[in-house]
Formats: sequence, structure tokens, C-alpha cells
Amino acid sequence: MSYLDNFHEFKYTETMSALLKQALHGDVRALSRLISSIESRSANSFKLMPAIYDARKGANYIGITGPPGAGKSTIVDFLIKLMRKEGKKVGVVAIDPSSPFSGGAVLGDRIRMQDHATDPFVFIRSLGSRGSHGGLSRATRDIVYCLDAAGFDWIIIETVGVGQTELDIMELAETTVVILVPEAGDTIQTMKAGLTEIADIFVVNKADRPGADQMSLWLSSMIEMGKTNSKWKTPVILTKGLEGDGMMQLYKKIKEHAKFVAFDKDRRKRRDEIRAIEFIQMCQDTLAQKLNDSIAKNKRITKIIKEVASGKENPYRMIPKVLKYI
Amino acid sequence: MSYLDNFHEFKYTETMSALLKQALHGDVRALSRLISSIESRSANSFKLMPAIYDARKGANYIGITGPPGAGKSTIVDFLIKLMRKEGKKVGVVAIDPSSPFSGGAVLGDRIRMQDHATDPFVFIRSLGSRGSHGGLSRATRDIVYCLDAAGFDWIIIETVGVGQTELDIMELAETTVVILVPEAGDTIQTMKAGLTEIADIFVVNKADRPGADQMSLWLSSMIEMGKTNSKWKTPVILTKGLEGDGMMQLYKKIKEHAKFVAFDKDRRKRRDEIRAIEFIQMCQDTLAQKLNDSIAKNKRITKIIKEVASGKENPYRMIPKVLKYI
Repeated sequence: MSYLDNFHEFKYTETMSALLKQALHGDVRALSRLISSIESRSANSFKLMPAIYDARKGANYIGITGPPGAGKSTIVDFLIKLMRKEGKKVGVVAIDPSSPFSGGAVLGDRIRMQDHATDPFVFIRSLGSRGSHGGLSRATRDIVYCLDAAGFDWIIIETVGVGQTELDIMELAETTVVILVPEAGDTIQTMKAGLTEIADIFVVNKADRPGADQMSLWLSSMIEMGKTNSKWKTPVILTKGLEGDGMMQLYKKIKEHAKFVAFDKDRRKRRDEIRAIEFIQMCQDTLAQKLNDSIAKNKRITKIIKEVASGKENPYRMIPKVLKYI
Repeated sequence: MSYLDNFHEFKYTETMSALLKQALHGDVRALSRLISSIESRSANSFKLMPAIYDARKGANYIGITGPPGAGKSTIVDFLIKLMRKEGKKVGVVAIDPSSPFSGGAVLGDRIRMQDHATDPFVFIRSLGSRGSHGGLSRATRDIVYCLDAAGFDWIIIETVGVGQTELDIMELAETTVVILVPEAGDTIQTMKAGLTEIADIFVVNKADRPGADQMSLWLSSMIEMGKTNSKWKTPVILTKGLEGDGMMQLYKKIKEHAKFVAFDKDRRKRRDEIRAIEFIQMCQDTLAQKLNDSIAKNKRITKIIKEVASGKENPYRMIPKVLKYI
């Protein structure tokens, strides 16, 4: 994405700084505009990220994932209610990387917000990939830091599916809840061993359907097999999303795990590793941004791209010629 | 990935050039080693890509995608047989981006190869993402060009699932076949409008199961609604993978579409656009590679990364300090 793409971008960084100040002081509309700017990967929002990072207040990051139709949003809505009862502020980032074409995410937002529309301490934002080509997990990270800076206590990162993007996103979460349904055999086949590696808590939702106990047993034996030296014992919780059964138990386990990761040595080591990987990705992103700026500004690069596009030039041979100008 | 990661890498580019020559002359073992080198994103294989690109012979690239359990591999195996009957050489790249953890891909290879093990004109390779973090679609592209250069007439790109990585990969295919099963309602919900945008041919497999006709009608009406000015009419084909029903019809349609894209003006324009996007990605990759080289070699960068990893430094603030050294 080049600077030129950001039609909605504010002209001056001063305006952006003012927006950040307002957002950090609890102005929800300012926060919403700031997040839109981050989502569009605007150059001005990039400039604010150092300050946003410094302003983080230490929220708990909870990842919730599972196949479509597992009842993720119902469970998230219940969790929001439980967290609000304790006076906690909740931010939700809901990501659907598999729908790059639809504007459905925004519609989903509106429907889901109705429940909490009058509550200024609940903030829900849906992200679709909309041509972001791998930028989604980075945008999510920056948005989560922004919500953290804005003072939300719990930040829930909800993703559909089990692809690479989702796994990247889940690295951001300190506690990952994987939600399945009794008939999710196919999904498990796809997720394979990865399931137990990412899950800190398993939920078998719609537990009144046939096969729930079987699924629960199967997950438990998979956990047993994949056992590591970690002191955390991954629980399997049966829930009925619509009735709220098992929801208190889930919330309790989430709180337990949030405490666990804060002090566990292995988890902190893993967190350091992730920080290093993230940082290298950030450097890569910045390089890519520089490339895009050069493409937008330099006519010699534009000419090379046209020749490659038409099939006249060998792209692999043209790479060094472009990089020369950066 | 840095140069240092490539333990299996050949020491001299001369050896790689010899390998390429052998691969282009039909040496399957040389081809296999060359592809492994490309898959690992080795610096030496990068150096060969200009020559590989020039050596392409104009194969047809066919994408085959759909949810897990739709019967993709059974259908691909049937297509291979039909193509071989006409004396065509077939290369298959099977990608499962959702299994980054398992080495299952390799096992799958062995099982699938048994059918065609004695046939030097069938080449099957499975790719898992194995920590490639977005590099998978680029590796796939380079491997497909390599198979094209090696003289395969048909190159089948088979992917599981419907995430962003799969969509990126499918841009490489000139003809995309989407395979569904009668009960794939959930998948369709996830894929939404995107389905008709990527599919040139729909297959409803396992068509003896209940709901097949309904699914077929529903797809047809979705195609009708999403109708563009294209002269291609997306067909919906009912198949029974295990019995081979509908398979001849599918192959016929694939051949028809391959001819269609070669001459259709809109499709050629789209191809040019994709070439431009791919080229920019290649430039980005090369920049990322340069960054990784610097990280491996420069101790000042290593120090900064350590400070970020430990949480001592703000990563966003450290980016320019690292890029200074590149």
C-alpha cells in the first residue's frame, strides 16, 4: 500500500497526535478513527505507533479461534457480559481472513454492537483482509496495542478458521481458547497436531449434540500425548453457548491462565522470542513501505513494472534494477 | 530465513547450474533436489530463477481447491490418468497451508506417488508451510515455473482450504476448479462471494449424497447473480470421485477453459496485473532477504533485537536504527 492509497488520511500528523490524545482519554469516536487509520496501514498511523506502544497499560490478550459455525461470537458475547459484571473494560478485534472480498465484516460489527451499543467500555471492531495480503496480522497487532493503550483490561482477539494468518494472529494472544463443536472432525483433521500446540483451553461448544463427550475424551487424550514440561494443564470445557452453560468455568480458566502466563518462565521466554520475530517483521514491513513509496514516486520504476507486467521483461532479472532506486 | 539456515544448501552455484541443466533434460532426481532448494528459499536457488523463468515452455496452470474432505486428491489422481492417456506430462504441487506443524505432507507424497511411481512423466510434490510465514505462495510460484521449465504440459496446483494464502496461490492458476461436497454449507458461508470470483469451474463431488442437486442449483444461481461481462460461463459439474463419474466432462471443461484464457482479452489484462503485483512481491522478498543477511552478519543489529525481545526497547522506535545498517 502506498501513501497515495490513503485518501481518507489526515493531512497532518498534528491532527493524528490530537486524535491519539483523545483516544487515550476515553473518546470512543477518536479511538475508532485512529483504529481505521491503523487498519489502512497509513503512514501517519505508523508514526504514532512508538507512542502507542509506550502507552500500553498491560491488558490481558485472549485469543479465541475455531472453525466457522462453532459459536465463537456467542461465547465472546457471554464473556463480555461476565467481564463487564466485574467492571472490566473489554476490547474485541474479530478477524475473518477468509473473506477478502466481502464488506460483511462491517455489517457484522453493527449487528454485534447492538448488544453493547450503549456501553462505552465495550469496543468491538471487525477486520476483513480486504486485499491486505499478509498485512492483516500486523494491523491486528497494532490495533491490539492501541486498545491496550486506551485502557481496556481484556482484549479479545477472535479469528475464524485455522490458516497461517490465524496462527500468526494467535501468537499475539497470551491465552488461546480453541472452540470446537462435537461434529468438527474435518477441522481437526486439518489442524492436526497444531491444535494442542496453540490451545491453552479447549471448549467443546453445543455440548448437547451427540458426540460431545467423545470429542472431549479425544481432546484430553491428544493433550496427554502432546504433553510438554509446561506446568499448565490444558482443560477441556463443555459449553452450551446459547444457554450459557459452562461459561463461568471458561471465564475462570481464562483468568487462571492469564495469571499463569504472567509468572511462568517458559511462557515469558516464548514471549521474548515472539517479540524478536515481530520486530523483524516490522522492519520488513517498513522496507516494503519504502519500496512502495519509491514505486509511487519514481517513473523509472514504473517503467520497469510495466515491462514486467506485459511479459516483455523477466521479473527475476529486473529485481536488482528496482532495488537500486530504494 | 537467512543464508545460515540452509544447511542442506549446495556450496557452489556451479553445482546448482549443473543441477538445473539435468532437471531441464528430464532428470527427475535433479528436479526433485532443485525444487527442495527452491522450497527452502535458498540464496542459490534465487540465483537460478531468472534462467528458470526464461526456460518456461508454456504449460497450463490448473488450480484445484476446496475444503478438506471434498475429495480433491481423488479427482486430481483421475485427471492425471486422463492427461497421461493423451501422452501429456503432469506436474502436481499440493499445498496445505493449514498444517504448519506436521511433516504429514511428505508422508502424503509417498502414498500418493505409489500410483504413479513408475511413471517418469508424473511429478508430485507436497508443500506444507513449515514456518514459512507467508513465503509459501512465493515458493509455490517459483516451483511451478520450475516444473514449466522442466517440460510438464499440465501443472496442477492443489490447495486445501480457503484462506488468504490459498487465494494468493490461486492467482497463479489460469484455470481454477473449486471442489465442494453436497454438505459444504459451512465452507460456503466462509467463502461467501469470493467463491464465484475465483472459480472458473465448480465441481460438486460425492454427488450421490443427498443435497447434490440443491447445491448445484444454488451454485448456478450464485454464478448467475455474480455475472460479469466475461465470455466464460462457469459450469457446475457433478462428479463421483471414486467411480470416476463426471471426470471426462471435468477434463473437457478444463481444456476448454485453458484455450479460452489464452485468447480472452480480459483474462490477459488480469494476467498482466498479477504479473505486476507478483513482481513487487518479489522485490519485497529480496529486501527481506537482505535484511535477514544483515541480521545474520551484523552484531549491532543482533544487540538491538535482543533488547527488543527482552522488552527493554520499544520495537517501533528501533526500526530506523536497524534499517540504517541495510
